[in-house]
Amino acid sequence: MPMTVKELADLCDAQIAGGDLSTSICSAADIRSAQSGQVTQLTNSRYAQYIINSSASACFIAEGFTVDNVPESMTLLYCADPEISFIKAVEFLHPARAYSRGIAPQAMLDNNVTLGNEVFIGPYAVIGENTSIGDGSAILAGVYLGRNVTIGENCRIYPYAVIYDDVVVGNNVIIHSGAIIGADGFGYKFRNNKHVKVPQVGNVVIDDYVEIGANTCIDRGALGSTLIGAGSKIDNLVQIGHNNKVGKNVIMCGLTGVSGSCNIEDYAILAGSSGVADHVTIGTGAVVMARSGVAGDVKAGAQVFGSPAKDKKTAYKEQIAISKLPELLKKVKLLEEKIQAIEEKVK
Amino acid sequence: MPMTVKELADLCDAQIAGGDLSTSICSAADIRSAQSGQVTQLTNSRYAQYIINSSASACFIAEGFTVDNVPESMTLLYCADPEISFIKAVEFLHPARAYSRGIAPQAMLDNNVTLGNEVFIGPYAVIGENTSIGDGSAILAGVYLGRNVTIGENCRIYPYAVIYDDVVVGNNVIIHSGAIIGADGFGYKFRNNKHVKVPQVGNVVIDDYVEIGANTCIDRGALGSTLIGAGSKIDNLVQIGHNNKVGKNVIMCGLTGVSGSCNIEDYAILAGSSGVADHVTIGTGAVVMARSGVAGDVKAGAQVFGSPAKDKKTAYKEQIAISKLPELLKKVKLLEEKIQAIEEKVK
Amino acid sequence: MPMTVKELADLCDAQIAGGDLSTSICSAADIRSAQSGQVTQLTNSRYAQYIINSSASACFIAEGFTVDNVPESMTLLYCADPEISFIKAVEFLHPARAYSRGIAPQAMLDNNVTLGNEVFIGPYAVIGENTSIGDGSAILAGVYLGRNVTIGENCRIYPYAVIYDDVVVGNNVIIHSGAIIGADGFGYKFRNNKHVKVPQVGNVVIDDYVEIGANTCIDRGALGSTLIGAGSKIDNLVQIGHNNKVGKNVIMCGLTGVSGSCNIEDYAILAGSSGVADHVTIGTGAVVMARSGVAGDVKAGAQVFGSPAKDKKTAYKEQIAISKLPELLKKVKLLEEKIQAIEEKVK
Repeated sequence: MPMTVKELADLCDAQIAGGDLSTSICSAADIRSAQSGQVTQLTNSRYAQYIINSSASACFIAEGFTVDNVPESMTLLYCADPEISFIKAVEFLHPARAYSRGIAPQAMLDNNVTLGNEVFIGPYAVIGENTSIGDGSAILAGVYLGRNVTIGENCRIYPYAVIYDDVVVGNNVIIHSGAIIGADGFGYKFRNNKHVKVPQVGNVVIDDYVEIGANTCIDRGALGSTLIGAGSKIDNLVQIGHNNKVGKNVIMCGLTGVSGSCNIEDYAILAGSSGVADHVTIGTGAVVMARSGVAGDVKAGAQVFGSPAKDKKTAYKEQIAISKLPELLKKVKLLEEKIQAIEEKVK
Repeated sequence: MPMTVKELADLCDAQIAGGDLSTSICSAADIRSAQSGQVTQLTNSRYAQYIINSSASACFIAEGFTVDNVPESMTLLYCADPEISFIKAVEFLHPARAYSRGIAPQAMLDNNVTLGNEVFIGPYAVIGENTSIGDGSAILAGVYLGRNVTIGENCRIYPYAVIYDDVVVGNNVIIHSGAIIGADGFGYKFRNNKHVKVPQVGNVVIDDYVEIGANTCIDRGALGSTLIGAGSKIDNLVQIGHNNKVGKNVIMCGLTGVSGSCNIEDYAILAGSSGVADHVTIGTGAVVMARSGVAGDVKAGAQVFGSPAKDKKTAYKEQIAISKLPELLKKVKLLEEKIQAIEEKVK
Repeated sequence: MPMTVKELADLCDAQIAGGDLSTSICSAADIRSAQSGQVTQLTNSRYAQYIINSSASACFIAEGFTVDNVPESMTLLYCADPEISFIKAVEFLHPARAYSRGIAPQAMLDNNVTLGNEVFIGPYAVIGENTSIGDGSAILAGVYLGRNVTIGENCRIYPYAVIYDDVVVGNNVIIHSGAIIGADGFGYKFRNNKHVKVPQVGNVVIDDYVEIGANTCIDRGALGSTLIGAGSKIDNLVQIGHNNKVGKNVIMCGLTGVSGSCNIEDYAILAGSSGVADHVTIGTGAVVMARSGVAGDVKAGAQVFGSPAKDKKTAYKEQIAISKLPELLKKVKLLEEKIQAIEEKVK
């Protein structure tokens, strides 16, 4: 939905400088590819060099940020938080596609399903008995909701996500395609040379404003619940084992694995391909850096790196030391020779 | 299905001590959260401290294990193997939900599908021609079985698992949602600056009592079969490439990858996020520790760690040595200075 | 479809030596398991030892490659490129199964779907509005294509692959089951102690002859496109974040992750379980070895190993040095003692 530069500035809390206020803005783009009729943002001085040749019609920029060589055709949109203003602009210019409310005739609802107002259920979705879906939620094509599942309000669940029995999902949750929520945790006891399955009879509880990436797996508790706290964001292909307690506003990047019965406290960040052994606590705001493997508790606010993960400073110091190690071997060999020579002399 | 403490003890081979034998037990819980009407287990002395404040009505415990401060309201259930007795209790108290036998009218069966007795096929499942499903197996909603697939008896295949053509699945196998069994192996020959696809015309054969986690992938053989031996348990998001031979009772944890043409022998354990290069043998009972990458054969019974993976003792020794390395660099610098000083003196 | 040894040789550009030209060949197998009526290949001298006991009726072998102890029942098929001739033989003997052209009555096509000639759409596939599918493409059961999706000619998309809105797929592309193309990239801004979602309004563009493995995820661009270049081959369970540009004929093995806004240039190889941080360039033909984590740019043709990844030679040298480190610690301790002794003497 196109709008003028003036309208865009008003909607996004920005002050106008230069350009033509009546120019129509159709879409948003990054600073290197934006064309006439597009709005962009400049939030990093590294990219200021691209302004001079940009055809963008408008550009969000922080108050007090000076930039040279602004083309005449570009309106600068000064604002307190250009990243957030730009997000607003993108939302206006590229509105998320709506799903017409209603239940597709090819959806399969079992007995005693409770539906809120303005719910969308796509074709071939399968909804188990005693399951409820809150107001405004969109259950897209082919989603599977088991029995006794609760989905809150204004959720969006993408095609072929699978929610096993008894899972509870809060409000404003986004679950991407292929995510599997509530499959059995991985638990066995070894007896008589066989692995005896431990029944997994708990569930998963996901709080409000969580986003779960494509093909991510969150296992049900063996007993009790696996918990995902409000506002936590989980990337694609993440494995969250049974009985983990993930706090609020946690970030877990792609291909990360958390084995089981861990506490991942609020605001922790698990970077890409990292992993956490079982029964470990990752403290509030701690950062597990990419590809790190954590075997023991990490203190609040700490940053750890490596496998096994250590305090970032220690790990970096060791990395630098390792890079000097081949040279060190030579040095020590030389010292040995020198000492031998000295010993000959002084004996 | 609730039962009395007495009934539970009899079913689970336990001797009763204390408490009220007629107390009704409704469900199971872990020792820290169990309430009145619940049974728990105490199998680790680390958790004995929680007994005193527990409201659990009953607790499985090993014969000969002494515990103090048992509340009056709690019956101790002494048994030879409390973990196994507790598993039985959980199975009685939280029975796995049954699926009514029969074929959903929305399931799509192609020509010449053979069905055993008491089979369940859920809505929108798609069953290819010449495929057979054994007695008592449950094929849940949206499962895709290709052509010439064989599914044994008493299997459970969860929604949207995909079984490609020609795959053979034994009896009592559990396959979780999103698992993809029999997709093409990853094989190309590089010619004329292009990757020429090697046809992948083998299959996957899965033996009895295997469990396969959510979103796990097991590729078909290029020629011949990829094999998963009886009793092996595979976690979520595991990648098993073409022509691997996985033995019996193997454990493979989440996010593990086995590239191709490997022998993973009986009772081997691949811990989380580990990986195995192609054409490698992991010997019987060997353990590949978490996040380790194995490039060469691992002997039976060995434990290996790191990337590249080494014998655990060697790897640990090296890890300790690395932690001393920054200090070592300083020491060697000091030695160099001292030697220089000595050389001045004795020259 | 069986054929004689003579027919097979003609079809696969091979010269015949020995054996019986009229022998019927039914299928292909590897050299250790091939039986009478099967053709195999010998392309690695390591496997020459298996010839003597092989029952294979025919064997592709390179011109000029000498091999002893060839059984009388085996015809050698000499050719310039036995691997490619064998691929041809496999394709003839094990032809890929066709899907009868046509639209399954259970498929759900929204408004304004454009279909080429000879298209197959399987049952329960869901095709969004304004989507087009090119000539000869097979969209198997349960595939989800969103709105404004373009699928080229002669593609094959396996069951339950999910293609989000606006994705563009070229010709001759294979997408395996469970692959999720075009889910939201993982982008948030942290404000007022919350993660604010950055709208992901770009798309994914996949060029010709790409193959995408099972359960692999390729995220849509935040703005603009995530690109996969022609001829690139991507294994199972790979995570490709938003706005990556993957070049032509790139290889990405299982469980690899590329975070975002990277350039993976032509012919690069990312081995299994490797990872690339954001905004990194992997140069043309560079190799990221298995389990390596790349944090900075990698030059064209370089090979890197480790986490953090370094030039392969450097990394190997360091690995060797690390293996000598425990010994080095002892040596330095000994030197310290010796020097102390010398210092006593010469003071």
